[in-house]
This record gives sequence, C-alpha cells and structure tokens, in this order.
Amino acid sequence: MREIDLNADMGEAFGDWRMGDDESLLGIVSSANIACGFHAGDWDVMARTMAAAQAHGVGLGAHPGFPDLQGFGRRKMAMPPESVGRMVQYQLGAAQAMAQAAGGRIRHLKLHGALSNMAMTDEALSRAAYKAALDIDPEIILVVLSGTVMEQVARDLGAAYAGEIFADRGYAEDGTLIPRGQPGAMIHDADEAADRILDMLDAGAILTAGGNRIAARIDTICVHGDEPTAVALARRLRERLEGAGLAIRPFAGAR
Amino acid sequence: MREIDLNADMGEAFGDWRMGDDESLLGIVSSANIACGFHAGDWDVMARTMAAAQAHGVGLGAHPGFPDLQGFGRRKMAMPPESVGRMVQYQLGAAQAMAQAAGGRIRHLKLHGALSNMAMTDEALSRAAYKAALDIDPEIILVVLSGTVMEQVARDLGAAYAGEIFADRGYAEDGTLIPRGQPGAMIHDADEAADRILDMLDAGAILTAGGNRIAARIDTICVHGDEPTAVALARRLRERLEGAGLAIRPFAGAR
Amino acid sequence: MREIDLNADMGEAFGDWRMGDDESLLGIVSSANIACGFHAGDWDVMARTMAAAQAHGVGLGAHPGFPDLQGFGRRKMAMPPESVGRMVQYQLGAAQAMAQAAGGRIRHLKLHGALSNMAMTDEALSRAAYKAALDIDPEIILVVLSGTVMEQVARDLGAAYAGEIFADRGYAEDGTLIPRGQPGAMIHDADEAADRILDMLDAGAILTAGGNRIAARIDTICVHGDEPTAVALARRLRERLEGAGLAIRPFAGAR
Amino acid sequence: MREIDLNADMGEAFGDWRMGDDESLLGIVSSANIACGFHAGDWDVMARTMAAAQAHGVGLGAHPGFPDLQGFGRRKMAMPPESVGRMVQYQLGAAQAMAQAAGGRIRHLKLHGALSNMAMTDEALSRAAYKAALDIDPEIILVVLSGTVMEQVARDLGAAYAGEIFADRGYAEDGTLIPRGQPGAMIHDADEAADRILDMLDAGAILTAGGNRIAARIDTICVHGDEPTAVALARRLRERLEGAGLAIRPFAGAR
Repeated sequence: MREIDLNADMGEAFGDWRMGDDESLLGIVSSANIACGFHAGDWDVMARTMAAAQAHGVGLGAHPGFPDLQGFGRRKMAMPPESVGRMVQYQLGAAQAMAQAAGGRIRHLKLHGALSNMAMTDEALSRAAYKAALDIDPEIILVVLSGTVMEQVARDLGAAYAGEIFADRGYAEDGTLIPRGQPGAMIHDADEAADRILDMLDAGAILTAGGNRIAARIDTICVHGDEPTAVALARRLRERLEGAGLAIRPFAGAR
Repeated sequence: MREIDLNADMGEAFGDWRMGDDESLLGIVSSANIACGFHAGDWDVMARTMAAAQAHGVGLGAHPGFPDLQGFGRRKMAMPPESVGRMVQYQLGAAQAMAQAAGGRIRHLKLHGALSNMAMTDEALSRAAYKAALDIDPEIILVVLSGTVMEQVARDLGAAYAGEIFADRGYAEDGTLIPRGQPGAMIHDADEAADRILDMLDAGAILTAGGNRIAARIDTICVHGDEPTAVALARRLRERLEGAGLAIRPFAGAR
Repeated sequence: MREIDLNADMGEAFGDWRMGDDESLLGIVSSANIACGFHAGDWDVMARTMAAAQAHGVGLGAHPGFPDLQGFGRRKMAMPPESVGRMVQYQLGAAQAMAQAAGGRIRHLKLHGALSNMAMTDEALSRAAYKAALDIDPEIILVVLSGTVMEQVARDLGAAYAGEIFADRGYAEDGTLIPRGQPGAMIHDADEAADRILDMLDAGAILTAGGNRIAARIDTICVHGDEPTAVALARRLRERLEGAGLAIRPFAGAR
Repeated sequence: MREIDLNADMGEAFGDWRMGDDESLLGIVSSANIACGFHAGDWDVMARTMAAAQAHGVGLGAHPGFPDLQGFGRRKMAMPPESVGRMVQYQLGAAQAMAQAAGGRIRHLKLHGALSNMAMTDEALSRAAYKAALDIDPEIILVVLSGTVMEQVARDLGAAYAGEIFADRGYAEDGTLIPRGQPGAMIHDADEAADRILDMLDAGAILTAGGNRIAARIDTICVHGDEPTAVALARRLRERLEGAGLAIRPFAGAR
C-alpha cells in the first residue's frame, strides 16, 4: 500500500493568545511541526501541543524560526549562518526536552517562515541550519521543499529527509511557489487541490501551472489550520488520498 | 586525597554586552553554571561558553532562570510551579543541545537568581523545578544550597545532588545567608574566606556567624567572577584549598 | 441628565495574534484602556486601536502593564517602585505619541493586571506609578478602583481621577472583589448585572454580597470583551443604563 | 564665532549590562543620541542617561532602532515602512516622556544601526521614519548622514536637520563610508582625524580618500565611546576644534 504523510504547523499559540485549530488538525495529519518559542509557542504551549500530538500518534517535529514574536518569524533578519545554526540547535534542544517530557521524541525538523524562505535560496544558510541540527541528532529527518536548494543541501549532507509539496499553492515553471497575490498562487477548492496532489503523486513530479513536470521526491504534503476553510480542505484532501488507496503515515525519511 | 568542587556562574553575556571574567574563572573552578538565554546568555554566548568550559575540562551545568533579561533573573515572578517545571525543561534541553554541539554534556543543574531564592523556601516550586529536570535526565546532579528546602527536595526525589556553600557570604544562626547589607553578610578578605571554608570542610558543617555548627553535606563552593576582587578571592581560595591537601575536582553527586 | 462612563480594555492583540472584539466594544463603551506594548499591543496594534477608538469618539487611555507578554501582565513581578514609575512613563509616553499620530490624545491611565492588583494594596507602588504619570501629564485622569489604596493615593496626589466599579464581579464585605472561583465572584446574567449597577449608582455606594453599603465615588463601569457573552452583557448594560436615563459619556475626572 | 556640534550614542546599557563610557563622553559632546529600549537602553537606563545629559547641558536625542537586543539593532530586519514609522513614533514618544521627567526635552532624532544603514539607501524607509517623527514633533531636528538619501528626504519633508560626518571613518569617492575591513575605513589617530575634520569644515565638503570634494552641509560630528581610545580620540578632537576657534554647541538645525 502506498503511503504519504500530511504535515501541518502547530503549537502557534503564545501565552493567552490562540492560533489555529490544532485539535482538528491532529485528527487529519500524520506529522506536526511544533513552534519552539521564538516566533510562537512557549514552554506551556509546547508541552500541551507535544502531549496532544503524542496522544494522536502524530510524528513530532521541531519548527524553529527567527526570534520575532511580533513578526511571527515572517520578517527576514540578517543573521550570520553560524549564528543561525546555533539558534536552530537551541530551539531543537528545547523541543527535544519538551517532547521527552511528553513521552515522545522529535523525529523531524522543518524551518519556519522567513528562515525557511531564506534557506530555500541561500545554500550557506540552509547548510548551517541543517548541519547544526544533524550535529544534535544525526537521525533527524529534514523536511525540505522538494526541488529547492534545501533538498540539494540535505542530500549533500547525507541526511534523512522528506520532500514536501503544498496542498493549496500553485507552482511556477521553475518549480517555485507562485508568489501570493499573483493569479494561481492559492488553491481554495478542496477537490481541485486533491486532484492536483494525486496527479503529482502519480507523476512523481511537481506539476506547474503551465503543465510542465519537474521530477521530485514527494514524501509529505503541507496543509494549514489557520482558517476553518483550511481545516476543511485538509480533511477533504485526506479523504481523497485515502479513497485513492493511500495510507496517511508519518514519513520514514530516506537519504 | 580529599576532593572538593568550585563552581561559578558563567556565560552571562548577552549579544554585545559582556559580564564577568569567564576566561579567568575557567582556570580556577571545576564546575560552570551556564546561563540558558532567559536571564542572560544567548545561543552564541552559550556555544562560546560551553566550548571554553569544555576546553578547560570544567563540568558543564545548566543555570536556568526567569525570563527577565532586564532584571537579570533577579526579580521574583509569580509563575505556577508546573509552568516553572516546563520552563526548566525548555532551558535544560537547549543547554543540552549546545553542550552536545561543543562535544560535552550537561552534568548538573543549578537554579538562578530569584528562581533559586524562591525555591530555597518554596517546596512546591523546588520540587516542580527539580522533578522536571530529572524527567529529562535522571542522572543530572542538582546543585542545592546545603541545609535548605532544596536539599530536602533533592533527597526526597532520590536525586544525585551536590551540597553548596558560599565562599564570600556569612551564615545566620538558622543556616541561611545573612542578607546583603547586614553586618557580616559579605566576606571580602580572601584568606578569611579560605579559613572559614576550610573550617567548614573539616567540621562537615556550616559555621554560623554566632559560632554554631549546622551539619551539612558540602560538595561544592560557589565563587563569583563579577569583579576583579572576586576573581582574586576565588584564585586565593583555590590555592589555600590545594595547600590544605584538597584536590579541586568536579563533584560526583551522591544520592 | 446624569452621566456615567463605560470603560474596557482594548488593543490586546499582538502581531498576528488577536484578542477580544474591539470593534463591538467601541460601539458600547465611552473610554478605552489601550495596551502599551508590554503585556500586549505593539506599535501597529496601538496605532490601529487608537484610530478606531478616535473614530468612535471614545476616550483614549494608556493601560500600562508589566513587561510580560507570555503572562499577559498577570504575573506579579517584584520591581522597585521607582522602576515601576519609570516603566509607566515609558509606556505612557509611547501611548501619547501613538494617540497624537491618530489625531487624539491620551486622557486617562489605568494600570493593568498584576500591576493593578499589586497597586491596589501597595501604597508605595501606586504612589510611584501615579506620580510618574502625573509628572508627564498633570491633567491625566487616573482610573482607580473605588474604595482602594489607589483611590486614596490619587486623592493625596491631588490628581483628577475616576472611581471604577466592575459590571460582572461581586464585592466582599470589605469592598474588595470576591476572588474568582469563590461563590458570587462572577455575575454572568446581564440584567442582574444591570440591576446591581443601577442600585450602586443610586446608592452612591458599592453594594456588597452581604447587602452592605460602602460609600464610593462611581464614575465608570468596567466591562470586558474577551468573550461573546461579555460583549452581550456590556451591550445590555448600556441599554439598561440609557433606559434608566443615564447618558454614557467619557468621565470628566474630578479631583 | 563658528560653531560645531559633537554627537555620540549613549544609554546603551541594558539592565545590569554596561556599555560605553557615557560619563566621559558627556564632558566632550554637545548632543547625545539616547537608545530607546529596543536595541539597548531600558526605562531605568534612559532615565539615568537623560538626567546625566541634562545635567551636562548636552542636547537630548532619541535614537530608535530595531527591536533586537541580541543583535544590538545591527541586524537588518524586513519591516514594512509604515510599521517602521509607527515603531519610531513609539520609541520617540517613550523618549519624550523620559526626557520630560528628567526636566528636559528631546531635540533631535537619529536612527540607529541597521535601521540607519537601511534608511541611508531606501528612500521609502527613511521617508516613513522621518515623517512619522515629524508627525509627533514638527520641530524635531533630524540627524542625517550628509549627502545621503536621508538628507534628501529631510529636505523634501521641509524638516529641520543636522548634517553629520564621522570623525573616525574614511569616505569613498561617492561620499559613502568605506566599509569596515577595507583599507582606509577606520581612522585611529586622533590628530589625523582632527586634521581631516578641520579640512572638511573649511571646505564645507566631505573629503574622500581619493582627495575629491563632495559639497555637504556639516553640522555635527559623530564620535564614539565604546573603547578607551574612542573617548581619547573624541577628547583630542574637541581640543583641536576649540583650538581652531570653533565653539562646541548643540546644533540649531536648519531647514
């Protein structure tokens, strides 16, 4: 039976502030990217999220970001790569401890927001971030955007990784995401998204808006939980994937 | 040969701000309590400090405090014990990762500032903090102020711990530190401090200002590095201890 | 025509995190206590909130709190009174600038959360906070909990102030709020709350759970917007007050 | 008698951390750029610095920066111009209140670190920052690097401003600073720096490393206090300027 993973960002509350519908998502996805306190999440939120994810049998991941609560880690910051590496180690270590306290362990790492966007095109940055994580856990599975510098770096480092595509975003002809605000950037219809994902899985390739195929390893599909419609889309996508004979399972990570 | 440990707080810089003379202290002490980013220290400072301590063969310790850079973790904060526990886990996990990246590992944990002062008399708080740390590493050595609630809790938890006395502080008749600002609170003369410490080690007891003995396990002596005189006092104390036939070694931690 | 003010906390979002229903509240209240960036609110949230309040003709107030986003300013912190005073000046100054940019000005000041709870019983603290605010604006109106140390300090300082009671809380026999969790602490029924408030306004006194009267100056009633029911209660209270012939107007502040 | 201003950054301590030798600098300069709590400085540091500057008759300035204590405001952050404007207002307002409490008032504004470096070449950013400050105080004097986009924007806005050159930095042929690390970037000899500054003042122009003149309004000279040699250089520069018949006075700011 073919398998695929669904992943989502979680634990993005902070103190009394809530965000997203983690409880619903945990019934849908197989991997959770859990904020580590820098762009969102605090130790109480992390503990709660780890415990809930663990209870649902969802794979635990660290989701480190820039130290920027106000900007939710979405503002680019000029930080030397070696400092980024240490920052990733700090957040990963904190997440490992919280996971352990919840009776689980961190299986994967996915960069957040501006840190991810920068690493997507900056080889030195993604190398520093990934190498730092592997220094802490050589078995950690890196979640990389399929076809980007991130994937190349993960391969170069001989790391276990999972190639990721987005359920609700259109792809440009070079395999990058169509920027938000441009036509075709967002896919709002659940069945359209599901059709597209199933086609990509069958093709073993990213399908661009222009109809081209870019061969890519696809191990996990990113879904969102910020809005009710996002949860509904994720739920429908899961149904469609299961209907097509796919089992939703945490990725194994291959090298 | 009798052994004793000397410990000091370190890694209390933050960003461009410096504090203390870590380099000098690393030539004197056998255990380093390293700030974990909440009251002082950031990931770059931690990495630097861990590497330096490791190079000197000094035992690495996590030194968690309240999330209060401006107050240097010295302002009491009303935080529920279970939240304190999770906060300790977060900081300990981050420190473990940074230690591992430096080729070492965290051997001990010592609470900082107001968190320590509160735990000294609040059993629920010290229990929450210590139990949380032990959940992450059952072998971690807790540094407790000899004769306080902290020591009692460490015993109750069956934890490995090291009993600590202060080199430069006078003790009241109940075994607590004489509050700063009161006569006899501070000991500034190095030889006076050394005489007193040697007497306590011989007696296996805290010696109060009034001349009483309070039986106590003494495994480590806390020295400071904030001022030039503090470093000089620490250096002289080490010479005197060695002169008296004591080997300065990282504590083993006994249960 | 008799007048009364309704006040509510606002601008408690932070970055991407939302809190409360400011838009609804602005159609109900006459004074807004706007978070100043320390426990909630950032410069973008403040600007947005000031502009909205200004557009509704609602009186602008600074609502300073402890520097504690994670704890939402509700965790007590041990901070020297003179430092608290300067912290209030910092937040008040920032709020004044944001109000000016929105075409308005800060009319009043109300302490938030743990800072308010501590000031309620700590005369040195409330004096330091209020005097510091008056040093920046001698005409600022202090919102004080009627019958507390706060009110006494406001009087001593010769400050303009507004005495406040709570719409949804029961009062103990000594005039303090019945602690949350105890019977009678919370009033959930809108008409019961309205009846009670109207009785207090008629009596010119706080009415305790036991039926006693404690003479008090009542200038403003605090309502909340954290939950849908809170907004509904506030709206119903306003209708009942207007139905009883009271005009809802920003307090004038008397000395 | 000809006049010139000397300015320096100050109040860059934070909590228990110290930085620079403000006390020495206050005997040398005529204008102080005071950190506003985001990259350095807190309310206690600000109050202390304002009072000291006021006591020395030194002109008070707000020195806003990015919200980045760890990076000391020197890491570029991608923040929308309108958000930068509101951030400047927040910090300026806080500084105005602290200055008022010290018996003074904020006369000028100078951007700090990465915010300044970005504004130097980004017209939208410098316009947003300056316009926001002028909305709070139309009389505020903007300190701009002579010959940059900053100066052009200050002129366009009809603002009072002071053109600034650096005492210890070499200039490239296009009038920009030679980047640190390149030959000629830093001038360490006090008399060489003084000769050069006097030549520029005589010429009414920036003198480049290649010997070219770029006409520029020069109202103030930036000196530093981070190192003992910097203070010595500043002191010697002042002596030389006074010896050449220049009075050291706070800039008036011209439009």
